[in-house]
Amino acid sequence: MEQINIGLFGFGTVGQGVYKVIDNAKNAHAVISRIAVRNLAKTRDTAAPQELFTDKATDILDNPEINLIVEVIDDPEASYEIVKQALRKGIPVVSGNKAMIARHLPELIELQRQYDTALLYDASSCGSIPVIRNLEEYYDNDLLLEVKGILNGSSNYILSRVFDHNQPYAEALRKAQELGFAESDPSFDIEGYDSLFKLIIITVHALGVYVAPSDVFTYGISTIHESDIRYAREKGVKIKLVAQVVKVSDEKFTMFLMPEFVPPSRYIYSVDDEYNGVVIRGECYDRQFMFGKGAGSLPTASSILSDIMARRHDYRYEYKKMRYVDRPEYSTDVPVRVYVRYCETDIPGILPFAEIREQYLSAESNYVIGDIKLCDLKRHRDLLSAPDVFIASLPTFFVERDNQ
Amino acid sequence: MEQINIGLFGFGTVGQGVYKVIDNAKNAHAVISRIAVRNLAKTRDTAAPQELFTDKATDILDNPEINLIVEVIDDPEASYEIVKQALRKGIPVVSGNKAMIARHLPELIELQRQYDTALLYDASSCGSIPVIRNLEEYYDNDLLLEVKGILNGSSNYILSRVFDHNQPYAEALRKAQELGFAESDPSFDIEGYDSLFKLIIITVHALGVYVAPSDVFTYGISTIHESDIRYAREKGVKIKLVAQVVKVSDEKFTMFLMPEFVPPSRYIYSVDDEYNGVVIRGECYDRQFMFGKGAGSLPTASSILSDIMARRHDYRYEYKKMRYVDRPEYSTDVPVRVYVRYCETDIPGILPFAEIREQYLSAESNYVIGDIKLCDLKRHRDLLSAPDVFIASLPTFFVERDNQ
Repeated sequence: MEQINIGLFGFGTVGQGVYKVIDNAKNAHAVISRIAVRNLAKTRDTAAPQELFTDKATDILDNPEINLIVEVIDDPEASYEIVKQALRKGIPVVSGNKAMIARHLPELIELQRQYDTALLYDASSCGSIPVIRNLEEYYDNDLLLEVKGILNGSSNYILSRVFDHNQPYAEALRKAQELGFAESDPSFDIEGYDSLFKLIIITVHALGVYVAPSDVFTYGISTIHESDIRYAREKGVKIKLVAQVVKVSDEKFTMFLMPEFVPPSRYIYSVDDEYNGVVIRGECYDRQFMFGKGAGSLPTASSILSDIMARRHDYRYEYKKMRYVDRPEYSTDVPVRVYVRYCETDIPGILPFAEIREQYLSAESNYVIGDIKLCDLKRHRDLLSAPDVFIASLPTFFVERDNQ
Repeated sequence: MEQINIGLFGFGTVGQGVYKVIDNAKNAHAVISRIAVRNLAKTRDTAAPQELFTDKATDILDNPEINLIVEVIDDPEASYEIVKQALRKGIPVVSGNKAMIARHLPELIELQRQYDTALLYDASSCGSIPVIRNLEEYYDNDLLLEVKGILNGSSNYILSRVFDHNQPYAEALRKAQELGFAESDPSFDIEGYDSLFKLIIITVHALGVYVAPSDVFTYGISTIHESDIRYAREKGVKIKLVAQVVKVSDEKFTMFLMPEFVPPSRYIYSVDDEYNGVVIRGECYDRQFMFGKGAGSLPTASSILSDIMARRHDYRYEYKKMRYVDRPEYSTDVPVRVYVRYCETDIPGILPFAEIREQYLSAESNYVIGDIKLCDLKRHRDLLSAPDVFIASLPTFFVERDNQ
């Protein structure tokens, strides 16, 4: 059995996890041959032999003994350059960089084809939960109707603190940062972009269609207010930041990322703290639910180990659903039912609701519940960024459609 | 893309589901070429062209156009004969027959190797939940510590009726039979054998070790009594029929199948009705949970379709963990903590408890809670079959060990 000699890019939280996990995996026949880092002088928690480290990418890319690259650096642009160079040299890559992959996937797929090599990235979506692999291999396109889930541990941790532990939002955010769940600039998690990138990748493997991140309506939880939390509590629901891709007909699907009022009957209601949970709905098997730790050093590293082991059998994503003739088309011409809370901004006057179903006015804040097309929400995205505005979807709407 | 021409054995509940699902799967490039049934005259709910049907196995096995066999007949012995013949002819087989596979897996693995063909059976364990495929491909041996779950929908449905809907056991069993969840002879489900067979198959793919069904302590729910249910209610737990395989050290694992008192903090506590749920515990990723419909015509058929599609890419199980040099060894020399309820049978006098921790005596019934080795339970299996006896494990024991 040929040994896998790994060139590791990055030795942060995930990189150190990868080092530990591979060191522990006796049957993997894999070793870390070199580790490329930006700053050789930096001290790190995990001890690794000094001679493994280099600050030159070429020490890995031009090393003929290295037959697999694991790339877990933070910077998406640097990651993009390394992955491109590696693929062009025919070296297979395992990566966890969701931002880089979500932005460049069409080109990365083409590079894999052109240079007959593989890029695996199961770790990029939901850490240790094998979502990508299962969508690619197990859930057949014709039967798949919906993938919906909580894909970001940090924002979910914050919402859990608020809903299950009655903490104020600001305090919950601070606590998440203390625990290392949220970055010091938490906007990537809190504004939904981390979840969005995962949703983009999931959609390629679920329906065989790539949609650019900028084409998807994305709304985070940064403007959530005490009145939204009170409203949710009164209704007996929790607010969760939910990513979803849904087939709305045989020919059309839509996707979006926004907070949702989740009732206790839904599986994702009990996905709390830093956990991730994904519901896969199919024509035949109804709903399936996968649940686990979506992030963190060792969970992510164990997912990367699975990708490394898959390379032992020359596994690569076939992207077979991308070749299906009757792939559904992405559309935002799809109505959703939303709750929009506002104060000064004239939401009912500006947003083109197809129908307004409820309206509440008070001295403190107002809200409206109505049906509106996703394309109209996208068109007015700037308006919704006002600090006095918060929007969340009501799952009821899709439920009613299910029952038709 | 070559068309898959399927020879289908069996046209019962699952066979008809397979027919419908394939008929619907536009991108599968698969057709049912022939259907072998025992009785041509029998009327069936699903309409299929009369010319497809035959009552001669050779019409499929000797048909050169058929390049895949799907075997979903009820009778494990007949299924065994068909699968053996097909593999010997080099025809790949997809099967859902857990009893047949659990009993004959070592021989079936050898036949696949010898005749360079494949047998896929993801449908045999937990219907539409892709447990086998994930254990085989995703969860690396070194990191896997435990697989534990509710693998049988019928017995779980009955226990759910009892615990969530306050129905008497006999009434719940009758209701399950009415709904078609339990066979007219329900012992396969109720006595735990259906779950046992799935556990045997899961263990091969989880740890690379085959254990014969007769070597595993197996205890069902047929002797459950009002006093056991009352006891569980008082403690705030539910009784579930749980299958588990657990590494107890680096060198040793154990497995068993028996009712367990499950507290609300456990994922499987909320696996109700006819659903299945599996918890996979690893060193790095802690616990992951997969949940879905474990049985039924269409969920099982969709799993079979996934196996059919996998054959398009020549997928086969590699059984790679079976070749690992440091596979753990199966042992029943492992203590478990159990509750044993009894009336006339002298349980404390006969069972060799290492330690008795609680004992309760009353006019109506008695129970003892103590630690005992699995091999001792196995040795006294007949005693435990007495109608006045019921045994259930307490998960606390393994929890304490986890924390050591």
